[in-house]
Amino acid sequence: MTRSFLQKLTRRIKEHGTILCVGIDPPLACPTTDDLRGSNRQQLLEDLHEKCVCLIRRTSDFVCCFKPNVAFFEQYGSGGMEVLQRLCREIPEDIPIILDAKRAATDEAAEAMANAFYSAYNADCVTLDPYLGEGAILPFIKEKGKGVFVVCRSSNPRSSDLQGFIVVEGFGAAAGKEDGAPVELYMEVAHMCDRARRHREPELSKEGGLVGIVVGSTYPKDMKRIRSAFPDLWFLSPGIGAQGGDLAATIEAGLRQDGLGLIVNVGRAISEAKDPGKAAEAFRDEMRQIMRKVTLSAH
Amino acid sequence: MTRSFLQKLTRRIKEHGTILCVGIDPPLACPTTDDLRGSNRQQLLEDLHEKCVCLIRRTSDFVCCFKPNVAFFEQYGSGGMEVLQRLCREIPEDIPIILDAKRAATDEAAEAMANAFYSAYNADCVTLDPYLGEGAILPFIKEKGKGVFVVCRSSNPRSSDLQGFIVVEGFGAAAGKEDGAPVELYMEVAHMCDRARRHREPELSKEGGLVGIVVGSTYPKDMKRIRSAFPDLWFLSPGIGAQGGDLAATIEAGLRQDGLGLIVNVGRAISEAKDPGKAAEAFRDEMRQIMRKVTLSAH
Repeated sequence: MTRSFLQKLTRRIKEHGTILCVGIDPPLACPTTDDLRGSNRQQLLEDLHEKCVCLIRRTSDFVCCFKPNVAFFEQYGSGGMEVLQRLCREIPEDIPIILDAKRAATDEAAEAMANAFYSAYNADCVTLDPYLGEGAILPFIKEKGKGVFVVCRSSNPRSSDLQGFIVVEGFGAAAGKEDGAPVELYMEVAHMCDRARRHREPELSKEGGLVGIVVGSTYPKDMKRIRSAFPDLWFLSPGIGAQGGDLAATIEAGLRQDGLGLIVNVGRAISEAKDPGKAAEAFRDEMRQIMRKVTLSAH
Repeated sequence: MTRSFLQKLTRRIKEHGTILCVGIDPPLACPTTDDLRGSNRQQLLEDLHEKCVCLIRRTSDFVCCFKPNVAFFEQYGSGGMEVLQRLCREIPEDIPIILDAKRAATDEAAEAMANAFYSAYNADCVTLDPYLGEGAILPFIKEKGKGVFVVCRSSNPRSSDLQGFIVVEGFGAAAGKEDGAPVELYMEVAHMCDRARRHREPELSKEGGLVGIVVGSTYPKDMKRIRSAFPDLWFLSPGIGAQGGDLAATIEAGLRQDGLGLIVNVGRAISEAKDPGKAAEAFRDEMRQIMRKVTLSAH
């Protein structure tokens, strides 16, 4: 029987003692695709594939999942997507794949996308964008046992442009939280996702699907607020490494009391390291140590 | 010299008297890609290509641009993307291509995407999602002469889930509009896009790039409000046909006083018509008639 995303994920976390997600976002010294013709192009695609396969082989002992960023394959046109497709078939069956797509679509377009990611690309989970509303989330969890992480508080410096807006008459007031005070838009997005999750609870709990949110490790205080309002939601946290996210603060803020509910993505700091395997092992160990401290202090 | 998106677009609108954008979103009776193997799969991709080429040939006299929806090609994996790539090279050079991608990315991922769409797929313009903030828009207009339409008020029924939230202390208050009253999130998105547009004005006006917004024809009242606050922004309006958008109300609400600033997308009502050419011609004629009325009554 094929395992669901949530089953695969929790199994990896528990059996391998790791909440490390390795990001596959291969930048290659490459001008525009127009400059690449014929054999050059074929060589580039081979290099791309080789580089990613290497990364996967060296780090797979230390990860709970892999997260390929679709944009970095997409930039090479259909050839790049072919590499991604091959790659996703080469990731060991028991390691879940989160396709970082940040997609947004409703109705038939959403179903087409879900079909693409889960079927053609063999993904267990995709990242989505919330702006189109709940209708852009539900089609992606129709297929039992799949997962989504919806962008809630993204790790980029200007993410507050929209996400930080103070919203009135939304969840903050309705829930009577914080004296019914208005809350930031990202809190509303977390609320929408939690609602979608609970709405699908019967199927989700049975089949192990998942509606989680993306919360950048660059904003641990916000993560803490979200965690305290939504104790059950799963978080996918990017931003460690080049973006300067704080690992200890992230784990303290995001980890659920059961030691689950949080996976931390590391991209370039592993994939561009001299020895990606060693770098991944070091990150896993550091995360383990922090988790131990956090779990101890909670008791 | 290659023309910019804005140059191509306004030329088509003026010389061919049309604001009709034809959506290329080919649904095909097809189970999942997993069920399609070998020759079946190849045949499906050939059918997909043939169907789209037919649509382009029959309707191109009546359109100001084409808008392929990436999701419907993406669902067939890399093979589908290859069809899209071929197709975009087959669209006549003087008709601009808007790739409906609703993408969201920042930094290097955004540059990778822009590279993909403008270079590998030959697009003149892409649709973007606003949730990551202004930083997710600017990389796409770095390349001079390209355009973006950012989703602002989408046409789907549940689009108010987020877009309708009332925001305090944002543009509404700052601009002193409507007695400084709080405004909906979509108004803030329109404001962000207008700011990005003006921020890039020197390059944009010189090279003819474009930052526009997507405003569904299913919400003409909201479109009217956006138009009155942002008289210069370009609108791309989906929702006519299956979604039940009102064509007359859309043109009245969205057309700028100079007769530009609005393009109206029609998808299935043309692509799935018995005779797509005839259907496109009829839509163009109806739009022309309404435009004439609107322009007359404005004088």
